[in-house]
Amino acid sequence: MAAGAGSTHWVIPDGYIPEKSAGELTSHESVCVLNTGFEDAQLVFTIYFEDREPLESIGVIVPGRRTKHIRTSSLVKDGETITAGVPYAIEIESDVPVIVQYSRLDATQAENALMSTMAYPVKGG
Amino acid sequence: MAAGAGSTHWVIPDGYIPEKSAGELTSHESVCVLNTGFEDAQLVFTIYFEDREPLESIGVIVPGRRTKHIRTSSLVKDGETITAGVPYAIEIESDVPVIVQYSRLDATQAENALMSTMAYPVKGG
Amino acid sequence: MAAGAGSTHWVIPDGYIPEKSAGELTSHESVCVLNTGFEDAQLVFTIYFEDREPLESIGVIVPGRRTKHIRTSSLVKDGETITAGVPYAIEIESDVPVIVQYSRLDATQAENALMSTMAYPVKGG
Amino acid sequence: MAAGAGSTHWVIPDGYIPEKSAGELTSHESVCVLNTGFEDAQLVFTIYFEDREPLESIGVIVPGRRTKHIRTSSLVKDGETITAGVPYAIEIESDVPVIVQYSRLDATQAENALMSTMAYPVKGG
Repeated sequence: MAAGAGSTHWVIPDGYIPEKSAGELTSHESVCVLNTGFEDAQLVFTIYFEDREPLESIGVIVPGRRTKHIRTSSLVKDGETITAGVPYAIEIESDVPVIVQYSRLDATQAENALMSTMAYPVKGG
Repeated sequence: MAAGAGSTHWVIPDGYIPEKSAGELTSHESVCVLNTGFEDAQLVFTIYFEDREPLESIGVIVPGRRTKHIRTSSLVKDGETITAGVPYAIEIESDVPVIVQYSRLDATQAENALMSTMAYPVKGG
Repeated sequence: MAAGAGSTHWVIPDGYIPEKSAGELTSHESVCVLNTGFEDAQLVFTIYFEDREPLESIGVIVPGRRTKHIRTSSLVKDGETITAGVPYAIEIESDVPVIVQYSRLDATQAENALMSTMAYPVKGG
Repeated sequence: MAAGAGSTHWVIPDGYIPEKSAGELTSHESVCVLNTGFEDAQLVFTIYFEDREPLESIGVIVPGRRTKHIRTSSLVKDGETITAGVPYAIEIESDVPVIVQYSRLDATQAENALMSTMAYPVKGG
């Protein structure tokens, strides 16, 4: 099929980059995107905070028939990145349908902890 | 866009505040809410238990274009809070659409454990 | 409202009762049900296996305006329970709408691990 | 009922087979499928990568009224398997409706970490 599966609008309310890494692995978050279609997906991220204006218009491209596991610490807008240790939320808009899953590895303690959930697909988005 | 994304009615059946914290981090639950709209969201929490009447009408405000990561231990109704170590469930109603994710950090043992899931969006709620 | 929220048909494909408990906590799974309505919910569990016929018609009642966090090890049909260490799956049908979340605590190692997800609500179920 | 519950098209964007196992348990991922219908489900897996063409047409059968917890390391196409330590994504198509959940056990450190989520059901898939 030419058109990819999924939604063009996704939300992840629980964003948080752990401040420490004590074990063999590094604490990180991944926004995992799958583009099952044949054309590039142009993603636009908006990062929301508790006490200040959102960071808007961060662009990421996911090629057709490819997945991309995006570390949130790699997202940059005019030199600004997401501060570790601060609660935030993620909104993703795409020009073509994609599927989005969010996972976090917390290695604050030597033994790591994992969590994962599908992002929320906004209906009719 | 002026109207925010999501649903006005969310449910989290598995609420539980761990009684202990042995590691560097404190055991806690977070109800993470994102309000992508421009107006305040007026949330009303209902807390259900296994063996007694619900705790009703706990109000929380999430400003427009902001996220709020709400610790369940901070919810108070007439001086009453949620007892640790007791199974419970959470229902959230909002006057405008929001998106809700639930996460728990259990630090009963020194090495922490994490879990997370989107809350259940009640259709037409 | 008199009618509760949710669906009358839920599925959890990844059931597994860990065989060991090494830490302070006991390995277990919880099927967490919330009944937001005012009448009792009559649940019927079906347990599916990889290599034999399902275990059917296990009944559980969740009173109105209550939650119940059901340990899968407590489910019994004619004296038969779910064997630990065996992959299985869970189907739940209810006479009134409820919301279902599944969580597992694995304490095989001294430090525990957690996972959780909403059950899958079968549409029109 | 003769027709099973669920969807015929599922997606899991965050696939990753951990490279190490340090504890009592072995790191692994499980794609857990439930077929509530009476006929066999013929599944076809497509594995997507970040930097090369997908691995297509990997077939798996789940018998009627059975569950199957499929280890991703067991998926083989013309002798090729999924490399450990590489980000990838999973698409599953089935000839009859099934329900799919994804779980990962990471035992990189001696104490294990768990994560789980329902796969994303593609609408009208």
